[in-house]
Amino acid sequence: MSSPEKTPEESLIERYFRPLATAPGAFELGDDAAVIKPPAGCDLVVTTDGVIAGVHFFPDDPPETIGRKALRMNLSDLAAKGAKPIGFLLSVALPAATGEPWIAAFAHGLGEDAVRFGCPLFGGDTDRTPGPLSVSITAFGVVPEGAMVRRSAASAGDCVLVTGTIGDSALGVILRRDAGVAKRWRLSQEMRAYLEGRYLLPEPRNAIADAVLRHASAAMDVSDGLAGDLAKLCRASAVAAEIDVSEVPLSDAARAVIASDAAVLETALTGGDDYEIVMTLAPHKLEGFRAAARTVGVAATVVGRVHTGEGARFVHDGRALAFKRPSYSHF
Amino acid sequence: MSSPEKTPEESLIERYFRPLATAPGAFELGDDAAVIKPPAGCDLVVTTDGVIAGVHFFPDDPPETIGRKALRMNLSDLAAKGAKPIGFLLSVALPAATGEPWIAAFAHGLGEDAVRFGCPLFGGDTDRTPGPLSVSITAFGVVPEGAMVRRSAASAGDCVLVTGTIGDSALGVILRRDAGVAKRWRLSQEMRAYLEGRYLLPEPRNAIADAVLRHASAAMDVSDGLAGDLAKLCRASAVAAEIDVSEVPLSDAARAVIASDAAVLETALTGGDDYEIVMTLAPHKLEGFRAAARTVGVAATVVGRVHTGEGARFVHDGRALAFKRPSYSHF
Repeated sequence: MSSPEKTPEESLIERYFRPLATAPGAFELGDDAAVIKPPAGCDLVVTTDGVIAGVHFFPDDPPETIGRKALRMNLSDLAAKGAKPIGFLLSVALPAATGEPWIAAFAHGLGEDAVRFGCPLFGGDTDRTPGPLSVSITAFGVVPEGAMVRRSAASAGDCVLVTGTIGDSALGVILRRDAGVAKRWRLSQEMRAYLEGRYLLPEPRNAIADAVLRHASAAMDVSDGLAGDLAKLCRASAVAAEIDVSEVPLSDAARAVIASDAAVLETALTGGDDYEIVMTLAPHKLEGFRAAARTVGVAATVVGRVHTGEGARFVHDGRALAFKRPSYSHF
Repeated sequence: MSSPEKTPEESLIERYFRPLATAPGAFELGDDAAVIKPPAGCDLVVTTDGVIAGVHFFPDDPPETIGRKALRMNLSDLAAKGAKPIGFLLSVALPAATGEPWIAAFAHGLGEDAVRFGCPLFGGDTDRTPGPLSVSITAFGVVPEGAMVRRSAASAGDCVLVTGTIGDSALGVILRRDAGVAKRWRLSQEMRAYLEGRYLLPEPRNAIADAVLRHASAAMDVSDGLAGDLAKLCRASAVAAEIDVSEVPLSDAARAVIASDAAVLETALTGGDDYEIVMTLAPHKLEGFRAAARTVGVAATVVGRVHTGEGARFVHDGRALAFKRPSYSHF
């Protein structure tokens, strides 16, 4: 007789992950595959990104935030493409020592974001691993047919804008690694918590996705540092960009750090994990975009201009900055 | 000036993975996301599965086969759902020691299967990891709207069929782990190579997917052992099944092993990694299904019947088998 009882894996999935699988096409995680149906006249936009303990997060980060951050990294890609999230797939590889309380907290955090961003779980894969814990997510969004905002359509004369503030997360991870730095940077407890929080749990700009869709000529997610990511956008569009560093939006905490150590400016402009959007738009679109951004309460700042040529030039006090490592890369 | 040059990661992707990204919606892997457009009147079927070195494959397995196996695991899920593959996403986590020749061979093998199964690459994610090499794939397929073959619609009176042969891979992995076993099992070199080959590179049954779509009442991929997977199908359908073990299709090599060690029968029926399809169909559908299976050259064997009740009973020489571990589970 082959067991009518569930396997331990099935029980785990049923207890912690099935509550996140609220869409009919997820079949309550009870089948080999899920069905995703983009609305008529829409394209499905897909993206995948993940995190590995010790590489993208600290193994002792709160489990509630780890799945949420992985989901938000993908939601940020969808936002930059002008896409509305409709669901995600989750693959987790768990070391043998990962207990049920960890899994429960992980799933609980993820579930909160699934509700908050209207992005339910459609399926996944759970494995044990002899290596570090890892989480890989594939997220699905929708845009009107043919309308996905590309990296490749920026034109000379366009304005360059970024959402939110730049560099907080890169400073947050330094603080997270070495608490002594906070003293050297003369940061208040509040500023330190703010920067660490920005690293731990980014705020993807999905609220502004529709405005990006309607107004931007090109856009991408800032995840490997503004300098490197803007260089990628310029390359894809075969244009150059000049950024006025004094216009790059910084949080009060980041300003305080840079005031005490000017060299940190480069870290802010080239560090990863911002999960903001960098976009270009034609000057006549600026007013409409700004009005839309105000409506949804997302800050968006003009930081420079697109030109003919190649490369992204960051100009500070009249001089072009030369970065040691312009972009975060694992390779 | 922020580099107009590509990052090492971009160069790697361009050299080895871009050639696999032949669909227009993949944008040559040059954007944050891809666009997937199921044909009008079709649902998109999505599934995700992956492999970790030391868990699902041996670290010294040929790199050409590792990506192919991961893709085929997902293709097998699509086949069992009656879906036609249209593309995939790839996430790889590579230890620092992974050199370019390994990556080149890995991508080359994967590219061969992408062409063979009509399943191009749409995007992905590459990372360095301090842990074992891992590969996670999300595959996309299409079925006519509402037609995905579920696990949950088997009815009392249906026949139970399986494709191909069962248990080869479970024996192949034992041989791969301990070459001395081949002698004990009195296997020819050819039989040993056959079983190890079935483990290394399964043959997903996508050729029969259309026949499954047209004829099966319920179906699933056999990946965690026939006994456990059929029990899952029975639970999803709220039915029982009785399998005549003497009808379960075995390869000559598996028969030879079981002839020398009868206890191995349980391994064949409960071991994982078959990547065959177990399905149920109404008796009046049998002839049409068999004709379709013959046309595409995939063996499909009636192994039992669906009844009212619960659980999957495996009957051998008039007695129901009691399995020690009916299903492969990581947990």
